Amino acid sequence: MQLGMIGLGRMGANMVKRLLKGDHQCVVYDLHQDAVKAMQQSGVIGAASLADLVAKLPKPRVLWLMLPAAVVDENLALLAPLLDAGDIVIDGGNSYYHDDIRRAAELQARQIHYVDVGTSGGVAGFERGYCLMIGGEKETVQRLAPIFSTLSPGVDAAPPMAGRDKPGSTAEQGYLHCGPHGAGHFVKMVHNGIEYGIMGAYAEGLNILRHANVGKQSGEVDAETTPLRHPEHYQYELDLPEITELWRRGSVISSWLLDLTAGALLQDPKLENYAGRVSDSGEGRWTINAAIDESVPTPILSAALYARFSSRGEAGFADKVLSAMRHGFGGHLEKPVKPKED
Amino acid sequence: MQLGMIGLGRMGANMVKRLLKGDHQCVVYDLHQDAVKAMQQSGVIGAASLADLVAKLPKPRVLWLMLPAAVVDENLALLAPLLDAGDIVIDGGNSYYHDDIRRAAELQARQIHYVDVGTSGGVAGFERGYCLMIGGEKETVQRLAPIFSTLSPGVDAAPPMAGRDKPGSTAEQGYLHCGPHGAGHFVKMVHNGIEYGIMGAYAEGLNILRHANVGKQSGEVDAETTPLRHPEHYQYELDLPEITELWRRGSVISSWLLDLTAGALLQDPKLENYAGRVSDSGEGRWTINAAIDESVPTPILSAALYARFSSRGEAGFADKVLSAMRHGFGGHLEKPVKPKED
Amino acid sequence: MQLGMIGLGRMGANMVKRLLKGDHQCVVYDLHQDAVKAMQQSGVIGAASLADLVAKLPKPRVLWLMLPAAVVDENLALLAPLLDAGDIVIDGGNSYYHDDIRRAAELQARQIHYVDVGTSGGVAGFERGYCLMIGGEKETVQRLAPIFSTLSPGVDAAPPMAGRDKPGSTAEQGYLHCGPHGAGHFVKMVHNGIEYGIMGAYAEGLNILRHANVGKQSGEVDAETTPLRHPEHYQYELDLPEITELWRRGSVISSWLLDLTAGALLQDPKLENYAGRVSDSGEGRWTINAAIDESVPTPILSAALYARFSSRGEAGFADKVLSAMRHGFGGHLEKPVKPKED
Amino acid sequence: MQLGMIGLGRMGANMVKRLLKGDHQCVVYDLHQDAVKAMQQSGVIGAASLADLVAKLPKPRVLWLMLPAAVVDENLALLAPLLDAGDIVIDGGNSYYHDDIRRAAELQARQIHYVDVGTSGGVAGFERGYCLMIGGEKETVQRLAPIFSTLSPGVDAAPPMAGRDKPGSTAEQGYLHCGPHGAGHFVKMVHNGIEYGIMGAYAEGLNILRHANVGKQSGEVDAETTPLRHPEHYQYELDLPEITELWRRGSVISSWLLDLTAGALLQDPKLENYAGRVSDSGEGRWTINAAIDESVPTPILSAALYARFSSRGEAGFADKVLSAMRHGFGGHLEKPVKPKED
Repeated sequence: MQLGMIGLGRMGANMVKRLLKGDHQCVVYDLHQDAVKAMQQSGVIGAASLADLVAKLPKPRVLWLMLPAAVVDENLALLAPLLDAGDIVIDGGNSYYHDDIRRAAELQARQIHYVDVGTSGGVAGFERGYCLMIGGEKETVQRLAPIFSTLSPGVDAAPPMAGRDKPGSTAEQGYLHCGPHGAGHFVKMVHNGIEYGIMGAYAEGLNILRHANVGKQSGEVDAETTPLRHPEHYQYELDLPEITELWRRGSVISSWLLDLTAGALLQDPKLENYAGRVSDSGEGRWTINAAIDESVPTPILSAALYARFSSRGEAGFADKVLSAMRHGFGGHLEKPVKPKED
Repeated sequence: MQLGMIGLGRMGANMVKRLLKGDHQCVVYDLHQDAVKAMQQSGVIGAASLADLVAKLPKPRVLWLMLPAAVVDENLALLAPLLDAGDIVIDGGNSYYHDDIRRAAELQARQIHYVDVGTSGGVAGFERGYCLMIGGEKETVQRLAPIFSTLSPGVDAAPPMAGRDKPGSTAEQGYLHCGPHGAGHFVKMVHNGIEYGIMGAYAEGLNILRHANVGKQSGEVDAETTPLRHPEHYQYELDLPEITELWRRGSVISSWLLDLTAGALLQDPKLENYAGRVSDSGEGRWTINAAIDESVPTPILSAALYARFSSRGEAGFADKVLSAMRHGFGGHLEKPVKPKED
Repeated sequence: MQLGMIGLGRMGANMVKRLLKGDHQCVVYDLHQDAVKAMQQSGVIGAASLADLVAKLPKPRVLWLMLPAAVVDENLALLAPLLDAGDIVIDGGNSYYHDDIRRAAELQARQIHYVDVGTSGGVAGFERGYCLMIGGEKETVQRLAPIFSTLSPGVDAAPPMAGRDKPGSTAEQGYLHCGPHGAGHFVKMVHNGIEYGIMGAYAEGLNILRHANVGKQSGEVDAETTPLRHPEHYQYELDLPEITELWRRGSVISSWLLDLTAGALLQDPKLENYAGRVSDSGEGRWTINAAIDESVPTPILSAALYARFSSRGEAGFADKVLSAMRHGFGGHLEKPVKPKED
Repeated sequence: MQLGMIGLGRMGANMVKRLLKGDHQCVVYDLHQDAVKAMQQSGVIGAASLADLVAKLPKPRVLWLMLPAAVVDENLALLAPLLDAGDIVIDGGNSYYHDDIRRAAELQARQIHYVDVGTSGGVAGFERGYCLMIGGEKETVQRLAPIFSTLSPGVDAAPPMAGRDKPGSTAEQGYLHCGPHGAGHFVKMVHNGIEYGIMGAYAEGLNILRHANVGKQSGEVDAETTPLRHPEHYQYELDLPEITELWRRGSVISSWLLDLTAGALLQDPKLENYAGRVSDSGEGRWTINAAIDESVPTPILSAALYARFSSRGEAGFADKVLSAMRHGFGGHLEKPVKPKED
């Protein structure tokens, strides 16, 4: 098929390359024309503007936006007047699904079809394929099957599921029409919420292993600190790169995220290249909002989000309140600074 | 090698079968002689008692205990007097590593070697191999390499790690000498703690997806309930068996636990075969104890443990306290029972 | 002053009574005319309709809405056309502050003043006074000072704060102009979020005390349950009514909520009158939403909210997912039902 | 009565002063003889050594230890040989109740009575009185009633509880025999666990109020940060000293800890005197251990403990793991440092 790609960041550029390998034709645009030029060597047609992009695509056009969620609406506002009835606009970024529902209605008024696609895979997606969670009208989604089929990992990417016999389903290919407008980003949102939780579970566990030698440190004795009762239980110097490699085989917690972790620890066993300030990108937050709207308890997913906030110092004032209270009732003074280390 | 297996439950019996496939000789014992008889058809030598088991093994003996953690000590008390200097006792169950440290010292007084092995793999281990986390003396562990090598999944069980070049390491085989006595069960303990967290992350996320249709239910209006502000955002009927199958390919959250979840949902999409009372088996609790001793924050792993407690009704009295307080300050009465459903 | 009260539920009726004691004149209206009639014996003027209420008040009118948050907008839609420029509408219920911001703008277009008042105090407020958190225009709030002064507890309700010297401040009276439109309900929202957390802290702690006798129960031995290692540490039969009464004097955790708890336990030591299904009324949810928007970590306040969700069975499907996974990897079956008790 | 006090820190010295006011005679000892001298001006008898202290007390002796938990055992080891059958040793510090159970048995072998007293009140206790949670033999506790009666706040310290009619109970005085050995410190332990939770609830809520102005800050637009969707909802500059003072009157969350918080914010509205490194002193940890042993879910109390760990940088390595994973799957780099501010 022919497809126009708007946005050539890490994700967009790799997706175009994967589409080219699958013999699709791509016209590409990015505000940064350098990115467009860099791609043209790969056999794509570059566009100098949104209007140019639209002009270079056959009708009904298929346009894929791969942009930061914060700029999708302004791009849509510029793009929509350039389009014709029957064209399809796909938002493959990390939009909030509320926006999908609104945008789909707005574009429908112009007879333009809107499809939301939650895209997982990251920088490995070019090789590994992208897991695509799709929302929109059934017919529109079906028309885009060749695109989705090329982008997704394909059936061989995982062992077949015993007992599964659903010939019509595309889930085994790695893409799925999840429901009406917004359903794709809704499922991707929760996917990312789960991702935060899983990442946090590994991180907490590895932190425990990392400090299995605390019994070797001599403790201080004062009224505010309880000494370690059994230092003899914490005398282990554990080799995290080896342990994470070990867990990749046969353990209940083997996963792709574990593979990445083992790889990172292999290169940098103490993770000295990182300061531990962890960003969060929206989906983790929206997941909690949805959970609360639905009355679904999500202590794990929330804890994972808050750990990221705290890693960036956002608990600071709350911590000061605690210190002030302790001073108030017990006359406790804060202890000297212990630098944030590993 | 020759090995005596004590305990022929789900785990022990399968491990013997895998050892037989690897051309080891096994003498087996279980308190339930039926289990011994069932195994004898597989080519093992059965033992009628611990003494019989010990008598049928060549010196220095290798004995593997695969028993509930609660009965290991009583079995060791019976077993130790039957053994000779130089014999090796392996505890492959889910013992607390504190007990390993104590037992190793006790057995060392008799010149018996003790090895603790955290074993992950579950019922799939016979086919998939067992991930073995090992603690003990270096030489003893090395002597057991043929056993560990057969039980573990082997290098092909996971894709090779780019950049890894550690020829002497066994982690790539799926077994690892983690450190001195207790280190094996310590690492396994944290492994299970992580497992609880990962499981909980999927469970919470799927619960959100499951209730993505709450906007279809009409709400009640009273002073105690806030109505859903945007029911139009919760109109999705999501297909969980399809979505979990989808995530197996290309997504960031693909894992073996996800494979199992997709399989369970394929068979029973609403999980009607389960009541939702979730057991916990010790390692999850000990993980939190260790984290607290080490001053390591583990909100995710704790939340996962508490969710299991709550699933069994253990929050009941706390909930009553909340209701009593609400009655006290607001005159609030509890609403009629909503049965615990999915 | 003269004030029209709309809504004569638990809160509204008591507030009218307190205003009467302070020599204000009240015209009252409720959809349920029985409530109006019941109040008329107290010396108020009853109104048969919103129009009647408006007609019976002198201009510029002051109207106080004390209604479930879910019906405020529909009442405002009926009321606004009946009002004149310069009238004041107060929403003293539990509205979401987003709505305050919107409503204030809508009413401003009609030159009607809007004031949001977060009201704490519950059923005890008639005697104890109401803590009032107020948002709106400065001049409008000042005009209402006589009302606020009567409703609030007054300076003697708490011991004077050492070193405090802010003569103009009304905080010591128990009411405060917190900021522009919405600020009152914003502060009340967070107040309730804190309330959930405090309540939950007591509830969890009392649950631990309640089960300090678990060492007396004989445990089962199987591969899935870890026995209590030290039953001798859990042999206490603690008297919760006495302990909560004790804590009321001199302890760091004395509070009004503790007073209520001690009172409830005195009447019903095992809280057998409650089933433990705990409602949540909106502010707790909105507090978390605000925290997430602000990147403020709130693990405690979230945990308190989720405990209420879980008390109503909302974790059910997540729990089933855990059981299904455990069956998948370990062949574990759920244990027989343990009824939800205290 | 006559009482020997061992340990003249913040708590011990004030307790002696309160006992003196109640016409008890005190012999005092502290390793730092300066502390002894300082007290002698108050009318106590100083002791130069433990032996001297014991010699100066009439038999049967009553000795009260008010020491850091970490040094109680070494002091008891020195003290016990100096005592006689029938003497009473009271540990009023923050000992782990496991130690009480052990010590009581050890001392019982010498016919010495041991009493554990959990003491709440902090530096305000001299004026306000101490809330005393007592474990030990019934008769021994009864013999000490004059001491407990003087130290505790007395019945007037809280409003009488409606409907309470338990003439024999001392809970209304502010002291209580909670149960056998260890029961006092068990109840105090849980008391402190609750305290952590309550403190954390206020701290989180105040942090939300503090950042109610985040909408005034301009956000950045990139693929990793989700912009604040409604900055117009976060335009409030809230006055925390005024709001906390306000809540002291009539609100549901009024408490002694709130009084302290309001006082601290009055003196230092931004809490600039604190860095936010919060200590924890043992009871919070042991509370979680007990909860886990009892299978009682305690997400709030745990979160409160972990917030303290995190405030001291203990999540550092876990945070680095998250950053490393994010780099692995998404090529994400950490953002520049944002200093830990309020």
